[in-house]
Amino acid sequence: MSVLVVGTVAFDAIETPFGKTEKIVGGAATYICLSSLFFTKKINLVSVVGDDFPLKDIKMLQEKGVDTKGLQIKQGEKTFFWSGKYHNNMNTRDTIETQLNVLENFDPIVPEEFKNSEYLMLGNLMPLVQKRVLDQMNKKPKLIVLDTMNFWMDHFMKDLKNALKEVDVLTINDEEARQLSGEYSLIKAAKTILNMGPKYVIIKKGEHGALLFKSDDVFFVPSLPLEEVLDPTGAGDSFAGGFIGYLATTGDIGFENMKRALLYATVLASFSVEKFGTENLKTITKKHIDFRIKQIKKLTNIDLKE
Amino acid sequence: MSVLVVGTVAFDAIETPFGKTEKIVGGAATYICLSSLFFTKKINLVSVVGDDFPLKDIKMLQEKGVDTKGLQIKQGEKTFFWSGKYHNNMNTRDTIETQLNVLENFDPIVPEEFKNSEYLMLGNLMPLVQKRVLDQMNKKPKLIVLDTMNFWMDHFMKDLKNALKEVDVLTINDEEARQLSGEYSLIKAAKTILNMGPKYVIIKKGEHGALLFKSDDVFFVPSLPLEEVLDPTGAGDSFAGGFIGYLATTGDIGFENMKRALLYATVLASFSVEKFGTENLKTITKKHIDFRIKQIKKLTNIDLKE
Repeated sequence: MSVLVVGTVAFDAIETPFGKTEKIVGGAATYICLSSLFFTKKINLVSVVGDDFPLKDIKMLQEKGVDTKGLQIKQGEKTFFWSGKYHNNMNTRDTIETQLNVLENFDPIVPEEFKNSEYLMLGNLMPLVQKRVLDQMNKKPKLIVLDTMNFWMDHFMKDLKNALKEVDVLTINDEEARQLSGEYSLIKAAKTILNMGPKYVIIKKGEHGALLFKSDDVFFVPSLPLEEVLDPTGAGDSFAGGFIGYLATTGDIGFENMKRALLYATVLASFSVEKFGTENLKTITKKHIDFRIKQIKKLTNIDLKE
Repeated sequence: MSVLVVGTVAFDAIETPFGKTEKIVGGAATYICLSSLFFTKKINLVSVVGDDFPLKDIKMLQEKGVDTKGLQIKQGEKTFFWSGKYHNNMNTRDTIETQLNVLENFDPIVPEEFKNSEYLMLGNLMPLVQKRVLDQMNKKPKLIVLDTMNFWMDHFMKDLKNALKEVDVLTINDEEARQLSGEYSLIKAAKTILNMGPKYVIIKKGEHGALLFKSDDVFFVPSLPLEEVLDPTGAGDSFAGGFIGYLATTGDIGFENMKRALLYATVLASFSVEKFGTENLKTITKKHIDFRIKQIKKLTNIDLKE
C-alpha cells in the first residue's frame, strides 16, 4: 500500500569523532524513503528543495520508486542546510549551523494523486507544516505516524499537541518523551502521551533500543550491539522509514505486527549509523536486513522451560 | 548446591532525589545473600563487621539460611560505612563519605567447611582480597563469578587482572567494561575482556539492561521498565545474587541456563531499586519474582512468522 512521506530533503555537513563529511544529501524524508524502499515501491514524497539541489539525487529516488511529484523545487532559493558535530559518546551533538532557506516558508502541497495514500509518515518538521499535510488528505489514512524533536517542543508545543490529536503513532526519543510528558519514568511518560491522542507511542533510546507502548501493552526491542558507529545522523528517520515501510507492505497495523515493524525499524537504523549519511542505506540489500532481523531475535531469545 | 559469598557487610547512608536514609544495613554481600536466598538456602558468607553491627541483622541472615561462620566480628572496631548522594537522573552519584574501618585490614578467612563450596561469588571488594579467597579453596569451584568496579581499576588494575585469570564470569557495568578494555564499543570491549581470562562477561547497563557474552555468543536482557526507582544502591549486587543463586539451584552452568539466570538477576535488581536499601528484598516472595520473569519474557517476545 502507498506511503506518503513528508519531511526534509536537505544538505548535511557532519563531523563525528570518526570523520567528517562535506555537504552531503540528507534530510529526514531522504532517510525515510530510502529505508521504506526495502519494503514498498509505492512511496509518495512531499518536500521542498532549492535549485542548488543535485538533480541526480532526485533521479536516484525516482529510479528506486519514489514518486517525487510533491517535491517542490524552488527556483532561486537554496536547500535546507544543517551542520553538526557529535561528541565523543555519539549520543549528543552540537548544531554548528542551520540554514532554513526553502524551509522558512515551506507550504506543503499534497498532489491530488497522493491524497488517498493509506500510510502517512510525517517526518520531523514544524508541527504546523505536519498539520497542513494532514488537513489536505481526502480521508484519514489507515495509519498516521508522526516523528518530532525537542526543538518543536521548546518553541511550538501547542501546535505539536494539536497535531498529536490526529496521530496514530508518535515516535520520539527518551529525553523528548520526558519533556513532552513532564514525567521522568518512561512508563509514566508513555501513559501521559497516550492520553494526548496517539494510540501508540514509540520511545527510541538510541543504542539502548526502543519501546512500543499501547495502553497496557509494552514491547521492547534492543538495538543490535555494533562494532562501529560512524554517524548517528538519520538513525531516527531510518527507523521511521523501516517501521512504516514494513507496516505498509504487510498491510497489518495490529500490535503484533507493529512489534515486527519495530524490529525492522531497529535494523534499518543499525545499518544507517554504520556509515556516514545515507551511504549504507544505498548499498545494503534485503538479505542483509533479514540476517540482522534474525540476529536481533536471537539476542533476546530464551526458553524458560517451565 | 552451596554458594560461597564474599563481600562487604556494611552501613550505608543514602540520599536520592526521592528521599534519604539514616545509617542502614547494606553492603554487597548483604544484597547478594538476600537475593540468592530466593533460590538456595546453602549460602556461606565470608565478610567482616565491627562490634557496632547489630546482632539482629546477623541473626536475620542466619534465620534465612546463611551460614555466617565466615563473618568476622572485630571487637573494638567499626563496620565499613559508605554514604552517597544520587543525582537527578539516578545514573550517577557522589560519594559523600567512605569509612573503611574493618575493611582496611580485612583478611578473609574461609572456614574449612566452606572450602568445597561449588559456587563462588566474589562480590565487589579489593581484588587482592578476592584473590585471597580464591587461594583458600580446596578445589576450583564449579563456577567463580567476580564483580568489581571502576575504583579498583583506577588503583589496583594489576591485581584485578591477576584475579580475572582465574574467574569464569565477570560482571561489570558498561563504563567499567570500557575502562577495563580500552574499547568504546561494548562488543569490542567484551572480546578484549574475554581474552583476559573470564569465559563469560556480563555487561550491566542499569536501566538499559544487561548483555551476556561468551566467545561468539551474545544474549541481551532488557531491564523491566519501572514506574518508580527510589534507590539504585545494591542493584548490581542484587543482580549478582539472583544470577548465582539461580545457577546454584539449577546446577547447570551452560550458556542457555546462564541466559535464564540473567533474567532472574535482572528481576532481583528491579525489586531492589524500588525501595531504599534492602527493604524490598526482605518483603517480596518467589511469586513476585516469577511474575516479573514472565513480564520480562513478554517484553521482547515476538513471533516472526516466516
